[in-house]
Amino acid sequence: MRTLVSDATNSTGKEITVQGWLHKKRVMGGINFISIRDRSGLIQVIVEDKAQLEKLRGMQVGTVLEITGIVVEEARALGGVEIHKPEIRIIIPVNQEPPIEIDKPLSHKPENLDTLFDHRPIGLRNLREQTIFKVQALVCQSVRNFFYENDFIEIHTPKLLAEATEGGAEVFTLSYFNKTATLAQSPQFYKQIMVGVFERVFEIAPVFRAELSATTRHMSEYTSVDGEMGFITLPDLEDFLNGLLNRVVDDVWAQYEPELRRWNATKPLLSKTIPEFAISEIHELYKKATKEDFTGEDDLAPAEEKWICEWAKKNKQSEAVFVTGWSAKSKTFKFYHRANQDNPELADRADLLFRGVEIVTLSMREHRYDQVVTQMKDKGYDPADPGFRPLLGAMKYGMPPHGGFGLGLERLTQRIIGLNNVKEATLFPRDISRLTP
Amino acid sequence: MRTLVSDATNSTGKEITVQGWLHKKRVMGGINFISIRDRSGLIQVIVEDKAQLEKLRGMQVGTVLEITGIVVEEARALGGVEIHKPEIRIIIPVNQEPPIEIDKPLSHKPENLDTLFDHRPIGLRNLREQTIFKVQALVCQSVRNFFYENDFIEIHTPKLLAEATEGGAEVFTLSYFNKTATLAQSPQFYKQIMVGVFERVFEIAPVFRAELSATTRHMSEYTSVDGEMGFITLPDLEDFLNGLLNRVVDDVWAQYEPELRRWNATKPLLSKTIPEFAISEIHELYKKATKEDFTGEDDLAPAEEKWICEWAKKNKQSEAVFVTGWSAKSKTFKFYHRANQDNPELADRADLLFRGVEIVTLSMREHRYDQVVTQMKDKGYDPADPGFRPLLGAMKYGMPPHGGFGLGLERLTQRIIGLNNVKEATLFPRDISRLTP
Repeated sequence: MRTLVSDATNSTGKEITVQGWLHKKRVMGGINFISIRDRSGLIQVIVEDKAQLEKLRGMQVGTVLEITGIVVEEARALGGVEIHKPEIRIIIPVNQEPPIEIDKPLSHKPENLDTLFDHRPIGLRNLREQTIFKVQALVCQSVRNFFYENDFIEIHTPKLLAEATEGGAEVFTLSYFNKTATLAQSPQFYKQIMVGVFERVFEIAPVFRAELSATTRHMSEYTSVDGEMGFITLPDLEDFLNGLLNRVVDDVWAQYEPELRRWNATKPLLSKTIPEFAISEIHELYKKATKEDFTGEDDLAPAEEKWICEWAKKNKQSEAVFVTGWSAKSKTFKFYHRANQDNPELADRADLLFRGVEIVTLSMREHRYDQVVTQMKDKGYDPADPGFRPLLGAMKYGMPPHGGFGLGLERLTQRIIGLNNVKEATLFPRDISRLTP
Repeated sequence: MRTLVSDATNSTGKEITVQGWLHKKRVMGGINFISIRDRSGLIQVIVEDKAQLEKLRGMQVGTVLEITGIVVEEARALGGVEIHKPEIRIIIPVNQEPPIEIDKPLSHKPENLDTLFDHRPIGLRNLREQTIFKVQALVCQSVRNFFYENDFIEIHTPKLLAEATEGGAEVFTLSYFNKTATLAQSPQFYKQIMVGVFERVFEIAPVFRAELSATTRHMSEYTSVDGEMGFITLPDLEDFLNGLLNRVVDDVWAQYEPELRRWNATKPLLSKTIPEFAISEIHELYKKATKEDFTGEDDLAPAEEKWICEWAKKNKQSEAVFVTGWSAKSKTFKFYHRANQDNPELADRADLLFRGVEIVTLSMREHRYDQVVTQMKDKGYDPADPGFRPLLGAMKYGMPPHGGFGLGLERLTQRIIGLNNVKEATLFPRDISRLTP
C-alpha cells in the first residue's frame, strides 16, 4: 500500500512505502541523504545500509523508485519527518543526468527563457516551476466556481470557423476539406448568440492569434476565459469582475502562500470595490505627478497604466483600477460595441488594470439589430457577409442588453505571481518562432 | 429590481418585475396569455387591459420585454403561479416570426438535422434543446469535480503542433508563419509528459480530426475529456472510470430529471462495479444467444457491442461493461501502449461500452524508454523524428507506470440522453460538409 509523502507526518514510528522520483542525492559516505518526490511533495530518506546504497549507484535524478522504511521525527527535515532504514526498489533506472536542474531554482532571465522552454518536459519537475501551474489550475477552478455561483452555464463553441469576418492579418487559415477555414481568435459572436439562449454563459478554451510580434505579452495560442451576460449594465459587469478578481486572489493565497514565497510573490492589495477613473482623470493625475502630458489622448500610455496602479496601491489600497471614458470614435471601438446612450461620444466600456497592465476589457455590446448593421457599415464591413449571419440572426429575433469580457488565463497567472513574460506562465508556449516542444 | 421567474413562486400576492423573452402568445380576445422566458424558466402572464394588449400587437416570439405585475397562485400554471395586471415595457421589439419554432419540440429526425443546425442560434432557445446543453455543462462540472477529488491537476496543452508524428490523413495542417503546423488530435504526448510532473493530470479541451467520414459518430472538432495518471495499474484506471461514470449519471439525474423526461430519457442502470468481460467471452455468449459466430476475431462487431450492453442490463443490472482481452498485435495497439507483462500477446487495455457503444478506451502506456523506442520502430516510426523528442525525453529521465483515457464530452452527453447523432449534443457541430453557423 502506497503512502503519499505528505501523509508520512501521520505515521511516525510506523513503516510506510512511498513511490516517486529521486529528486536529490547526497552520497557522502557515512550518512547519505536522498529525497523523493511524489505528487504531494518531498521527503528525505537516510540511507546507511551498504546494500541499499549500492542500489543507488549510478542512479540519477528522475529515477523512479519505491522505498519502504520507518518514519522518524526530525525537526530539521522538510515536513518534520524523514524515512530511516529504507528498503529500496528501483522501478525505472535513470542513468543520465537531466539536461536541466530540477532541485534548484531555474533561471527566468530573458536570455535563458529559450533554454527553459526547450527543456519544459523535464524542467517542470522543478517544484518552483510546478507552483506556477498549480496556481494556474486553481485560478481556473476558482474562476469557474465564481461563474457557477453566479448562474453561468459553461459552453463549448467551435474553434474552426468559416473565413474570418473580423480578423485580418492575425488569423490562421487552413484547408478544410474543400473549403478554407480559420481558427477562432475569440468566441465573441458565439457567446453573444448564447446570451439569447442562457443569458449567462462562460467558456474557458484556447484561442489562436497569428501575432507577428515577438514580445513578452504575445503568444499565438492562449487560454481565454470568456464571460457574457444579458439584462445587465456596465456597472453590473464591473461588480462581477470585482468579485471575480478578489475571489481568485483570496483562493490562491489561501492555498499556495508558502509556494508563492519561492517567487517572492506578495498578495495583491485589492479593495472590495476596485476604484474607477476616467482616462482624462488619469491624464490629469499623471501630469501633476510627472509633468508628462498626455491630456487629450484617447488611450493611456503604458507608463500611465503602471503609474495609476502604483498610485492606487498607495492611495486607494488597491493594485487594480477600472478605467472608463473610452472613446466610441476610436479604432478600438468595434462594430459590436455599444456607445453610451447619454453621451454617444463614449463607449460603454471599462478596462481593468492590474499591477500595471490591462488584464481585461469589459464592454457592453450593441444589441439593437439596426444599430449593429449601421455600425458594421461604418466600420467597412458588409452585413450580408455570411459570417455575420448567425450573430445578426440572433439580434433580429431578440437580444437583451448584454456585455462581457475575455481574460487571458496565462496573463492573469503571470500578474498574480509577478512573472515578467506571459510565456513563463504557459506550459508549452507558442509564438512566432516557437512551435515545440 | 428584477425577479427571476423561478423565484415568483415565493412572491404570491406581491408585485414583481420580470425581464425576458416573449416565448408564447395566445391572443384570443377576452383573456390573453403570454409566456415569458428568462434563464430560470417560464412564467405565464394574463393580459386583460386593452392598452397593455395593444403594446403586444405585432410583437413576435423573441421580443425582449419587462413586465411588472402581481403574482397570483394558479394550480394549472407552470410553477403554480402566474402574473396578473401586467404593466408591459417592450425593450426590443421583434417583428418577424422566428425561422424555427421555439415553443414546440424541434424535429431531430435525420432528414431534419440540417435545418436544426442551420438555425441553431434561434433553435437553442427552445427549452428542450437547452436541456441537452445544460446536461452537458453539468457532465463537465461533475467530471471535473471527480478529477479534483482524486488529486488531479488541470492542464492546458497546445493545440498548435509541429508536423504530425502519428497522425496521417486525419490531421489538419496550416501555415504557421514560415512553418507548417498541425492541429492536435489529442493531448496524448503532453498528458503523458505531465504525469512526470504532477502524476495525475486532466484536460478538457477541443481536439481536431479531419474525418472524411460523414456518420452519426464523427465530427471534425469535439471536446475531449482527457485524464492520465501515474503509479497505477489497469484495475486502478477501471476503478476510476467506474466512479466517474456513476458520479456523472447520479449528478445529472439528481439535477435534471424533469427536463430529461422531455427526451424520454431513463436513468442508466449502473452497478457500482461495472462488470468486465474478455472479448472471447463476449464472442461465446453472443454465439450461444444468436448463432452468429465471431469467435477468433480480435475486435467486437457493432452488433456484439449493442448486444452485450443489453445482456448486461438484464443480467448484471448495468448498462455499461468493461471489455478486456485486446490484442497487442493488432493495428489498434499504438506504439505508446503497453503489452501485458504476463501475456505479451495482450494489451493492458479495457474499453468501456455504455448503452451499446464504446465511449472510452482505458490503456496503460509503455513507460520504459527502450521498449517505447522498439515499439516505435516496429510500427514504422523514426524515434529520431523531432516530434517524438519531448515524449522520449520525459521517458529517458524517468516515467512511472502510467495510463489514461480520452472521452468525448458530446458522445457521453449523447448516450446519457439517448440521442442518435453526436451532433445533436454539439452546440455548433463541425463535419466534412458543415463549417457554419
